[in-house]
Amino acid sequence: MPKSNSFKAGRHFLQIPGPTNLPDRVLRAMDRAVIDHRGPEFAEISKGVLEKLKSVFKTSSPVIMYPGSGTGAWESAIVNTLNVGDKVLFFETGEFSIRWYDQAKQLKIDAEIVPGDWRHGIDPKVVAERLAADKDKKIKAVCVLHNETSTGIVNNIGEIRKAIDSVNHPALYMVDVISSLASIDYRHEEWKVDVTVGGSQKGLLLPPGLSFNAISHKALEASKKATMPKHYWDWHAMLENNKTGFYPYTPATTLIYGLDEALDMLMEEGLDNVFSRHARLAEATRLAVKAWGLEILCKNPAEYSNTLTTVLLPEGYDADNLRKTILDEYNMALGASFNKVKGKVFRIGHLGDLNEIMLMGVLSGVEMGLTKAKVPFKAGGIMAALQYLSK
Amino acid sequence: MPKSNSFKAGRHFLQIPGPTNLPDRVLRAMDRAVIDHRGPEFAEISKGVLEKLKSVFKTSSPVIMYPGSGTGAWESAIVNTLNVGDKVLFFETGEFSIRWYDQAKQLKIDAEIVPGDWRHGIDPKVVAERLAADKDKKIKAVCVLHNETSTGIVNNIGEIRKAIDSVNHPALYMVDVISSLASIDYRHEEWKVDVTVGGSQKGLLLPPGLSFNAISHKALEASKKATMPKHYWDWHAMLENNKTGFYPYTPATTLIYGLDEALDMLMEEGLDNVFSRHARLAEATRLAVKAWGLEILCKNPAEYSNTLTTVLLPEGYDADNLRKTILDEYNMALGASFNKVKGKVFRIGHLGDLNEIMLMGVLSGVEMGLTKAKVPFKAGGIMAALQYLSK
Amino acid sequence: MPKSNSFKAGRHFLQIPGPTNLPDRVLRAMDRAVIDHRGPEFAEISKGVLEKLKSVFKTSSPVIMYPGSGTGAWESAIVNTLNVGDKVLFFETGEFSIRWYDQAKQLKIDAEIVPGDWRHGIDPKVVAERLAADKDKKIKAVCVLHNETSTGIVNNIGEIRKAIDSVNHPALYMVDVISSLASIDYRHEEWKVDVTVGGSQKGLLLPPGLSFNAISHKALEASKKATMPKHYWDWHAMLENNKTGFYPYTPATTLIYGLDEALDMLMEEGLDNVFSRHARLAEATRLAVKAWGLEILCKNPAEYSNTLTTVLLPEGYDADNLRKTILDEYNMALGASFNKVKGKVFRIGHLGDLNEIMLMGVLSGVEMGLTKAKVPFKAGGIMAALQYLSK
Amino acid sequence: MPKSNSFKAGRHFLQIPGPTNLPDRVLRAMDRAVIDHRGPEFAEISKGVLEKLKSVFKTSSPVIMYPGSGTGAWESAIVNTLNVGDKVLFFETGEFSIRWYDQAKQLKIDAEIVPGDWRHGIDPKVVAERLAADKDKKIKAVCVLHNETSTGIVNNIGEIRKAIDSVNHPALYMVDVISSLASIDYRHEEWKVDVTVGGSQKGLLLPPGLSFNAISHKALEASKKATMPKHYWDWHAMLENNKTGFYPYTPATTLIYGLDEALDMLMEEGLDNVFSRHARLAEATRLAVKAWGLEILCKNPAEYSNTLTTVLLPEGYDADNLRKTILDEYNMALGASFNKVKGKVFRIGHLGDLNEIMLMGVLSGVEMGLTKAKVPFKAGGIMAALQYLSK
Repeated sequence: MPKSNSFKAGRHFLQIPGPTNLPDRVLRAMDRAVIDHRGPEFAEISKGVLEKLKSVFKTSSPVIMYPGSGTGAWESAIVNTLNVGDKVLFFETGEFSIRWYDQAKQLKIDAEIVPGDWRHGIDPKVVAERLAADKDKKIKAVCVLHNETSTGIVNNIGEIRKAIDSVNHPALYMVDVISSLASIDYRHEEWKVDVTVGGSQKGLLLPPGLSFNAISHKALEASKKATMPKHYWDWHAMLENNKTGFYPYTPATTLIYGLDEALDMLMEEGLDNVFSRHARLAEATRLAVKAWGLEILCKNPAEYSNTLTTVLLPEGYDADNLRKTILDEYNMALGASFNKVKGKVFRIGHLGDLNEIMLMGVLSGVEMGLTKAKVPFKAGGIMAALQYLSK
Repeated sequence: MPKSNSFKAGRHFLQIPGPTNLPDRVLRAMDRAVIDHRGPEFAEISKGVLEKLKSVFKTSSPVIMYPGSGTGAWESAIVNTLNVGDKVLFFETGEFSIRWYDQAKQLKIDAEIVPGDWRHGIDPKVVAERLAADKDKKIKAVCVLHNETSTGIVNNIGEIRKAIDSVNHPALYMVDVISSLASIDYRHEEWKVDVTVGGSQKGLLLPPGLSFNAISHKALEASKKATMPKHYWDWHAMLENNKTGFYPYTPATTLIYGLDEALDMLMEEGLDNVFSRHARLAEATRLAVKAWGLEILCKNPAEYSNTLTTVLLPEGYDADNLRKTILDEYNMALGASFNKVKGKVFRIGHLGDLNEIMLMGVLSGVEMGLTKAKVPFKAGGIMAALQYLSK
Repeated sequence: MPKSNSFKAGRHFLQIPGPTNLPDRVLRAMDRAVIDHRGPEFAEISKGVLEKLKSVFKTSSPVIMYPGSGTGAWESAIVNTLNVGDKVLFFETGEFSIRWYDQAKQLKIDAEIVPGDWRHGIDPKVVAERLAADKDKKIKAVCVLHNETSTGIVNNIGEIRKAIDSVNHPALYMVDVISSLASIDYRHEEWKVDVTVGGSQKGLLLPPGLSFNAISHKALEASKKATMPKHYWDWHAMLENNKTGFYPYTPATTLIYGLDEALDMLMEEGLDNVFSRHARLAEATRLAVKAWGLEILCKNPAEYSNTLTTVLLPEGYDADNLRKTILDEYNMALGASFNKVKGKVFRIGHLGDLNEIMLMGVLSGVEMGLTKAKVPFKAGGIMAALQYLSK
Repeated sequence: MPKSNSFKAGRHFLQIPGPTNLPDRVLRAMDRAVIDHRGPEFAEISKGVLEKLKSVFKTSSPVIMYPGSGTGAWESAIVNTLNVGDKVLFFETGEFSIRWYDQAKQLKIDAEIVPGDWRHGIDPKVVAERLAADKDKKIKAVCVLHNETSTGIVNNIGEIRKAIDSVNHPALYMVDVISSLASIDYRHEEWKVDVTVGGSQKGLLLPPGLSFNAISHKALEASKKATMPKHYWDWHAMLENNKTGFYPYTPATTLIYGLDEALDMLMEEGLDNVFSRHARLAEATRLAVKAWGLEILCKNPAEYSNTLTTVLLPEGYDADNLRKTILDEYNMALGASFNKVKGKVFRIGHLGDLNEIMLMGVLSGVEMGLTKAKVPFKAGGIMAALQYLSK
């Protein structure tokens, strides 16, 4: 598009793997005056939201909500259940698994991370082996990501649960679903997860600013013996206040308005429909990538993420340059790369309030960008996606 | 998309040839309390808008604005300049040329319409001939559409002007730019148009509800002798009030807020950039249509519209069924068909706040729809568009 | 408030007698993308709105809606039912009765206006006398305002109906309810009004831009013989299209979204509650005015308007200066004055989405302004209002 | 207002001492799609906001911003500068001073709180005495609230600074300005405050969800020796990232949009004008309270808060019942009471985007409520306010 200035016509496409394109219904719900967070109207909204959240996490236990980002909910999971010096096992599946591990270490946890190649998910057998080797049951928790946002790899949370059980290990099981919740099927209760860590800004169709802990009975018991200094993240004050729809400190009212609307939207569509829509759009994306002759970072198709696809550029081509080209020329933001794959990959977010037409626009933007940035590829990826979606 | 109910994820695509997808900036500008339409703040906004409008119509003469739809501004053009029984010449280029002609007849004008086949624009030579034949100068006005929204045909307003001048005919020249203004180059003053009729809901990036008359000195002189009963549409009260930024009756305040923002956006992008963006997106659309093996209703490439493309379906296929399929399955609205081409064509609107990625989504939606509705076509139209846009 | 610049903290109070302070719910409902005005979703919204409007006008006959201001709906009432040269009777109750009369004259109606002093409503006996004197039934219509916005006088529409009937006069009865609809009880059908003229921007809680005609069977019959040139305002095309939820030309989509929400709000509150709320706030206002020792323009308490109160300043004091002082100092707009009372009165709008606390703020603003502008008055008007509202 | 149901006409008045009534400009600024928080446009907005914040805190040192509530920023102040077992001095001036003290204890700080009667602010002499007595300089920090939101008492931060300096005590000086920032004059740098703790939801005109630490050089030095486990609240990661306009974890994008607009509004009005407006509205409120014959909780006029006024009800009257009456009848929320004064006082918030007319509505609502709830009082408090504001 020839431009004499920086004005960009048309809609911006936010195709990072979260935050996502916000539905107008959610934006409008938040465009509302704040009300008294200790008054009756707020209590009613709040209790409704806390209840609806349970069905999204698929749990009958409480889900609590912080004003804060997902990183805060990671911290909360740790400080509420563990003690300084506790041994905790992480598994490297990409940048965010490392960040959580780093956070734990900074919080004086004796954290260990099982190395990974960023191209494969966690092997449940390795989990079983590591726990079996822990004869003294020193490992207090196993922390994994359901969907690793930096690589586009989904871990099999149900199978990892079975692995833990297979060796009768009592470790707490803590799972990050920040970039999979309300997009990829997840079952807090059925999979006996102890703490599930969520965030508002991805499948929950909200801006960043709220984060969540879904808490099992076992985790709650553990929290009674956890002695790390904490106040803001303390579960007990939160759970106590939540009974009446209130919070131990001022909640983020407008985000809660938006959450209420977003949860209604998810229920209207139906969670199963939400999941199959994500699966369908993800498959179309992968078909396009393969047709372009490019490689998907995730090697195991069973571990492909349905919320994002991470694409490897050919050796010698700069993914950040491609992303900049696409942002400048086509007004679309794609996901950055980190660490081991810095500059080598770009990430296409295909989650949240997205449909086929939007996705075809997104993939077209990528294909135009590949040409513009002179990355070698086979034209026609979008046709592969279109044919799949036309079925 | 499998659906258990009527919920539709993602953004709706409004690809009728107007009203158009509203930019968020415009929606937000209108989401504002009304102020006193006789107060100083309103006067300031209003005077700014009336001035900026001139640059969009490319005129130094006044542009006036009605609370009302484009049909009202058609009526205004007639009742302010003509008298009952006046002879006026129209040219059939599609449904809207006929509607304006019908309106004139209903207003007791002695209107005549030169027949057309809906596939060609107005031949300036025919205009010259018709006027040359009018020895007594009985014809008081020539009324044409710059862009015929029902067919996607652009008339050459500058050449028609020359045709009128070539036979020294004094008829007023009245032009409808409802679906071309701020999308296709148009020059009220340079082309010596006497009344230009515009509307808010297309290239001006607004909802429907405002309409415009740009008025030449000659038209203003004619209005002094026009005797049809009129009050609401009366130019003189409007022009008199506008001097101070006010209106003879309550103006549509929130739409004026939006217009102010939309005019700023058009200035930020630059009108020439707006026109070339529309030309580029239109050409991509036409290349897709041709690659599908479908026919564009407009036969003369020089008359292709840059704001919409009207596509003929193969004999025996129902365009309304195709549109319904696309609306139901892909959440995209395409333009209906009228009259002679009812059910035979559909119209793709590609005007307003649109960019390449959105357009590729639109064309993909059409291609998926053609498959879904079982219309015979050659796959790959979107690749033709993409290749053009990638250049 | 000391100010170094033009920034004004806090909310602006729009207390002209319409347009009114818009509820956030209505603003948010309009902050929505436009949809195809020929599509199924629009038809559903539109049919709902056209039906709900009937209950607000209290009629079972059709109500039609124009993109346009109230002045347009005045014009529509005239051009659809009358012919050039028809004799029509108006009654001077203030500026807007004169404007409607002037419009009729401009439309070549043989209009006559019965003079008034701007301080009294229409005497039904005078109506009866005038019609009784019309032995040949030359008078084709009687046109009155339910609520005269320039003076704050309410005419007794039911009694005027009886007066017309008492002399068995066949004239059409046309009533403007622009500033009373959905604020003061009004009954189109019970009072056998033939055309009721309404607007969006007052009790209907919307911005300006929509106007209405409620049409009796008798008016519809008259329209079949009405020969004035008209197209935009033509009832028949509108009624025909409305059957399916559509319009003969592009409707003002976003205002219709807002209307849908506003009608729901009125139904939620209940029309009778809406009326009694207006009565209560109006009475509080009048008590304040009287306690200030100022005079209400309307002399007859039975004719006091519940949507606005027009206040006479003492001889020699400039009401426009007072309004400017209040706007500049307190960020509140009050209604201007016209014609006979220009500069002598100001108008307090107390209609629409208003409650006691807002009204007390409004009256406090007036009382502070009277002091600031050095108008002689007795302090404490707000206490009179407060005592009444505290009951 | 007679009501058949729960519908409440007119605007809700949120007169708790924060969150406050949001300006439409701020709500509209937040009603915007999220953008990439790692992209160039975000960096630009973010850097601007971080810079503008400094002028509101009156500091040239960095101000950092968390997604979180004010309680989080309290925690951040503690965990970044102190160590487990450190001795810290608090001063009881109401509920929130106790809560911060409780938080510190929960975080394993050796906190001590100097008792107070909730009706007086901190006596700087007592501060000097307590610090002078600390011969071994065991006290690592003095923590005070600039404005105690539960009582409406302002502490003299400058004089307390002088008291600390008078005994040459090296304790860090930490001040909570959550309910005073951008409403009452505050000078982080001039008063040599080490950590200033702020929140978004009061004078900053935003919803809850952001909180702040303004950090002195001395505090930054202390943070290098602070060993409490922390990650989310860690200053260093935040400061490091902020250099480029980014954050160590996903920031609350839409709240930052709103903050940007709110900071512009504060600059447009001018901070000194903001402060004098608050002083003026507060004085009017106090005059009303006194005229009602009710007692202000704060006994020392020099310590009256300009953002809220806490009012004592006569013995035997239930303030919660009064608040409920006012909420139900007049659609206005007033501030709840806590702890020692539970049920005995109510709080009128008069901060944020407020003007004279709004305040007069607020005070009228209180006066009507006092009548409705049958609390004994002298009528006419609003006149005392009005007379003051009319000067």
